Parts: sequence; C-alpha cells; structure tokens
Amino acid sequence: MDAYPFLEAVREQHPLVHHLTNWVTIYDCAQVVKSFGASPVMAHASEEAADMSGLASALVLNIGTLTRDFIESMKIAAQAANLRNIPVVLDVCGAGATSFRDRKSYELLDSARISIIKGNSSEIARIAGKDVRTRGVDAELVKADLREVAQDLAVKRQCTVVITGSQDIVADSGSCHVVRNGVEMMTHVVGTGCMATSVIGTFVGASPHDIAAAAAAGLSCYEIAAELAAVKSKGPASFKQGLFDCIFSLSKDDVVSRQRIDS
Amino acid sequence: MDAYPFLEAVREQHPLVHHLTNWVTIYDCAQVVKSFGASPVMAHASEEAADMSGLASALVLNIGTLTRDFIESMKIAAQAANLRNIPVVLDVCGAGATSFRDRKSYELLDSARISIIKGNSSEIARIAGKDVRTRGVDAELVKADLREVAQDLAVKRQCTVVITGSQDIVADSGSCHVVRNGVEMMTHVVGTGCMATSVIGTFVGASPHDIAAAAAAGLSCYEIAAELAAVKSKGPASFKQGLFDCIFSLSKDDVVSRQRIDS
Amino acid sequence: MDAYPFLEAVREQHPLVHHLTNWVTIYDCAQVVKSFGASPVMAHASEEAADMSGLASALVLNIGTLTRDFIESMKIAAQAANLRNIPVVLDVCGAGATSFRDRKSYELLDSARISIIKGNSSEIARIAGKDVRTRGVDAELVKADLREVAQDLAVKRQCTVVITGSQDIVADSGSCHVVRNGVEMMTHVVGTGCMATSVIGTFVGASPHDIAAAAAAGLSCYEIAAELAAVKSKGPASFKQGLFDCIFSLSKDDVVSRQRIDS
Repeated sequence: MDAYPFLEAVREQHPLVHHLTNWVTIYDCAQVVKSFGASPVMAHASEEAADMSGLASALVLNIGTLTRDFIESMKIAAQAANLRNIPVVLDVCGAGATSFRDRKSYELLDSARISIIKGNSSEIARIAGKDVRTRGVDAELVKADLREVAQDLAVKRQCTVVITGSQDIVADSGSCHVVRNGVEMMTHVVGTGCMATSVIGTFVGASPHDIAAAAAAGLSCYEIAAELAAVKSKGPASFKQGLFDCIFSLSKDDVVSRQRIDS
Repeated sequence: MDAYPFLEAVREQHPLVHHLTNWVTIYDCAQVVKSFGASPVMAHASEEAADMSGLASALVLNIGTLTRDFIESMKIAAQAANLRNIPVVLDVCGAGATSFRDRKSYELLDSARISIIKGNSSEIARIAGKDVRTRGVDAELVKADLREVAQDLAVKRQCTVVITGSQDIVADSGSCHVVRNGVEMMTHVVGTGCMATSVIGTFVGASPHDIAAAAAAGLSCYEIAAELAAVKSKGPASFKQGLFDCIFSLSKDDVVSRQRIDS
Repeated sequence: MDAYPFLEAVREQHPLVHHLTNWVTIYDCAQVVKSFGASPVMAHASEEAADMSGLASALVLNIGTLTRDFIESMKIAAQAANLRNIPVVLDVCGAGATSFRDRKSYELLDSARISIIKGNSSEIARIAGKDVRTRGVDAELVKADLREVAQDLAVKRQCTVVITGSQDIVADSGSCHVVRNGVEMMTHVVGTGCMATSVIGTFVGASPHDIAAAAAAGLSCYEIAAELAAVKSKGPASFKQGLFDCIFSLSKDDVVSRQRIDS
C-alpha cells in the first residue's frame, strides 16, 4: 500500500477531529492534528459532546486521565458518532494499570461501536483478556504473539486493532499491516503514543472507507516525520519541536522514499 | 496611537492576570503573560475564584473546554472582578459550534459586566445574533461587515469587541482600531487565539483606563513578535518557541518601527 | 554530599512517579520525570488513585489548580502511599493566595504523612503559620529567616521542608542543605517550580532512605541542566527546550564539576 494518497486526503479535506482526551498531552494531540493540516476540537461537556461529534469527521477517545463523568461524556460522543457513521478511535491508555481503567475500557467498548482500539502491547493484551500488568512500559510479548493478539481482538470486537511499539501492528479480521518506521527517541517524549492516536483519527477521518490502511498510512507518515526530526535533535524537547515542524512540511518524496509498511 | 507605552506599562506594573481558561492551551496562556513580564494565575475552584480575582489586575475567561461547573466559577470570578472594577475579558471560543456554548456565553454576558468580548469573525457574529456556524475556521464575512458587527455588538453589550483574524478589529461604541500586524503561520499553531486573549488581559490589566487602545496595543505587540519569530522558524513548533522568545525581548524599536494600527 | 550517585539511582531504577498535579504544567511535570529516565503517571480519579499509588515509587501532589474533589483524591492516594511507605511530596503551590488553598493544604497535611513539603518562601512561610500574602512572587524574607522557618516547620510536621528560590533550602529536623545552582531565566518560565517538585519526587522515589539528600541532589542536577541550557538560549521558550535536552544528556562530569550544595 502507498501512504502518500492518505496524507493528501488529509491535506485536501482538513477533517475536523473531535477529541475527548487526557489533560497531560491534550495540547500536543491538538497540535499534531493541526500540523497535518486538519482541525482539532476538544470538547468534553456531556451537554455538547454529541453536538460536537455531529460536526466532526472522526472522534478520538483517550482514557489517560479518565474520571467517571468523563467516560459518560465519551459514551454520548461515541453514540453520536455511530449515528453519523464517522470513525471512533479509542486509546486504552494505561489499561492494565488499575481495575478501574480496565472496567471503564470495557464499558466504552460495550456502549458504542469503536472502529479502532489502540494501545501498546500490554494495554491491548489486557483488553484482549490476557493477564498482564501495565507499568507504562511494554510487557515482553514476542512479536508473533502480538499479531495474534491483535487479530483475535479485532475479530472479537469487530474492529481494527492497533498495537504501537518499535513496530506497529494494524490488524482487522482480514488483514494485517506492520509499520516499521519510527525512532527510539519517541520513547523518551511524553505523548508520542497519544499523538499517534490523534494521527490515526485524522487519517481515518479523511479516508473512512479504508480504516486499516488509513491508520497504517497515518502511523507511517507520523513516524517518517519523527525519523527526519531525530537527525537534527539534541534531546527529547528539540526532537518534539522538530517532529511538529517536519509533519507540517512532510513532502511526497519523504513519504514515498521512507515508508516501511508490510501488508 | 502608539503601542509601546502600553508595553512599558505591563513591564513596569507586572499585572497579575487571573485566568479561568481551557485545558488545551492553558500552559501557553500562562507563558505568554509571563513572557510579557506580567504574572499569570490559573484558579477555577468556585471556593476561591472570587478571592483570586480579588488579587488580580485583570480577569480572563475562555470557554474553550467549558463545563457547567466551570461556567459557574467564571460567574463568581467575574462578579468579584466587577466589584473591584478590574477589566474582564471573555473569549467566546467555539461559540456557534454548539447551542450549549452559545447559551453559556449569553449567560456569562448577562451575569456580569464583561469589558471585552473577543473571538474570531464567526464566533463574534454568532454572539451578535447572526446565523453562522462555527467550524474552527473563520466564516467568510467581508471586512466592512465585521466592523459593523463589532460596533453593533459593542453598543448592545456596552463593552469593547475584538475580532481577530488576518486583521484584528477592536471596537467600542465610539472608536475602531484595526491592527494589521501578524503572520499566516499563526493560523497553524494551536492556541494563538487563546494567547491573544491573555495578551489583551495583560495589557488592559496594566492600562485599565483605556481599554480599547490597550487591547489594540497588546495585539500589535504580540503580532510583531510573531513577525520576528516567523523569519527564523521552520514550522509551527519552532515558530511558537520563537514567539515566546521574541515577546520576552521585544524592544522599543521593534514596536515603533513595525506597529500597524489604524485608528 | 555528592549528587551524582542519586542521579545514577534514578537512571538505573526508572522509578514510577505518580502525580496528582495541576492542569497548567502537567505536561512539563511528566516530561521532566521522563527526561531524567524515570516514568511519570498522572491519574486523579478517586476510584483509581489508591491503586495507581500502589504501583509507584513516589507520589507527587501539587495543588496548583485544586478543587474539592481533587483534594479528596489526593488524600486517598497519600494514604495508599503511606501504607506502602513510599515518599509523598506536596507542593503547596499558591498557599497564602486564598484561604481555600491554606485550608486544603492543612487538610492534606493532617490526613496523611507527607514526606516533603515544598514551596517558595512565601508559600512555606504561610504553611508555617506566618502572616504573609502570596502573589506569585516570593515575599521578601531574609535568608537567615528562611532556614529557621524551614527547620521549625520540619520539626512541627516531622518531615523534610524544601524552600526553592535563588538558593534552595532542604531542611529536616537534623540537617540543612543549601543548593546554590540555577539561573535567573528559570523565573521567566511557567512551571519551573512545579517541575522542581516532580524532580524531587523522582529522586526520592529512587533513594527513599535518604530523603533530604535525594531532594537536594535532584534540585542540584535539575538546576545544573538549567545552567547548561541557559548558555545557548535566546529566551524562555528556547531555554525550556534546552532544559529538557540537557537533563536527558546530563553527564557525570556536568554534575561533579558544577554541583553547589552546602550541607
């Protein structure tokens, strides 16, 4: 598959991406969407969650700093998104760390159709029902396992599953893309995982009829920008600045020459 | 009018600017105030909103990530600010996107004296009662219309109205300033609009007896710094970093030679 | 004392540092922890606050944007931390500005064992029962007073007390370290105080048996990175970027040659 046409679709359509996300990385989630040429909007009041999703091309949910009320607003937004058939991306950030997170993740999955479940390997393993404990770092599961975990969960929940890591797995019931772009410095920056979710929301918002391919393309473009930024960075903060700048000016040649997606 | 004396007043008085603002750009709102030499404080609990406004030189309200409770705290803070006669600036961020936002904006306007209503053209048009729909981008209203919209609303609400855009309009019942500084890159950075509101709060906090002129001066200084930052930037993130740095070291010569305010 | 072994302990143990902190600087608090090689986690829901503290090596509480509910979650987290004997650091951010802040600070101090109380001179003076008024800037107390204030409060509350400023005082009932690193530019950046608290949490998380020395070492390392960053910065934003980068690559030689701690 070619990632570039999906980037072009984002830049032509400027999709509005509605977020209910965490308070830690909320700015960066908004800025990554804007840097790709799309429009972020963050609105979580239960009174307007449905109306805002009614204007959007995609909905991104991230439970990083969840509360009970926040999850209720997420359900309202997701149900409104379902009515309009726009994609809903759920980042199960921190699943496996506390039973509250696990329970609320399941509640969300049961209360609306989620198009994409996204997490790192331990988070997704937990949502898939494996007995793992999240501690901010990936559990040590072998690569072969991860594809299987992703595809099993995709079938069970009738959705696309994304597991991010040194290689990203994007699986639905019938296909599996592996994205091999990215750099180690991303692991030293708070929010690179949350931003990946917002990027997925942006790309599927512009290409809702090809969810898995759009997600893989988004991850590849984002991580290509990271590769370009890493060359000139001196540490995590200059790297993050370069990441936004490189996303903003990402060229066709950058994407075509660097994309590493195995399908 | 000359903008520089208003900047000098900020740097001499270090006004304390109390914010009840959104969770997306809250850091940048605080940092822009501090970069100008003033002091930001963010405090939204209903139990202390009045006390904190009691210490401040200006109050900034921004409904970007509003909730019902948050609006109640804003009313308390605004009424406390009114008692002390300090300026209150309201950013009607996202007005027109949902009826909840519109309703809560009107509630705020009806519950306290607001010194300045600030928004982009579609937000202000909505608050003025026009039938527009906000989608994060400015509605296409012609320039002549905007002045009229601003001045009509200023008369109706007995306040100053600021419409930001490629040209900023600052209107009260008797005057209209147009600020022509700024660069296109600002539109690619999340939070430049929210920061503009915090800058206005900072400048009117130091010069409360000349609200419209102080607001125009603040916008001009902020956007001159943006012009200087744009020269060396490679994208939205390096631009934003340069913006704070340039605000911090903005000189009299920068302001005098570059200000473009038509009164 | 030597600061470097404490930095090594952080980099070897990667302590998980649980935060309940303010919405303004939450990202920077997380990133400073990560830049030192540790793992931040931010989780404030009352339903999971105890579970998350159950996974952590230290707990950081910061009342910057406190609400009643948030303080209740802090109590739950602090009591869970007490059960596991992990250090609890409390930043009494803004104490003295409103009676609500003072009251809630006392409530926290009375509801759990706090290992370290941290603030600037006026905040700590207020918590110690002095009649001062906080306005974001340090009250003018002479240096001799500050040591006494810190040690008296340390004895009264049976904890370590940290007063940050151009010199940082780290006092418990039996000892007093004075850290003389740092640069003036730190005062122009929003969040340098909050980050200092997160750094203290990180260092005491890795060295919980020597709280005061670990806190002093953390402050020294953080401020040495600030000294290195200041050399190349052009203003507050490039300085902050350099600060994270310099923390990430801080070398033994940097620390050994620059540390200025009087014990």
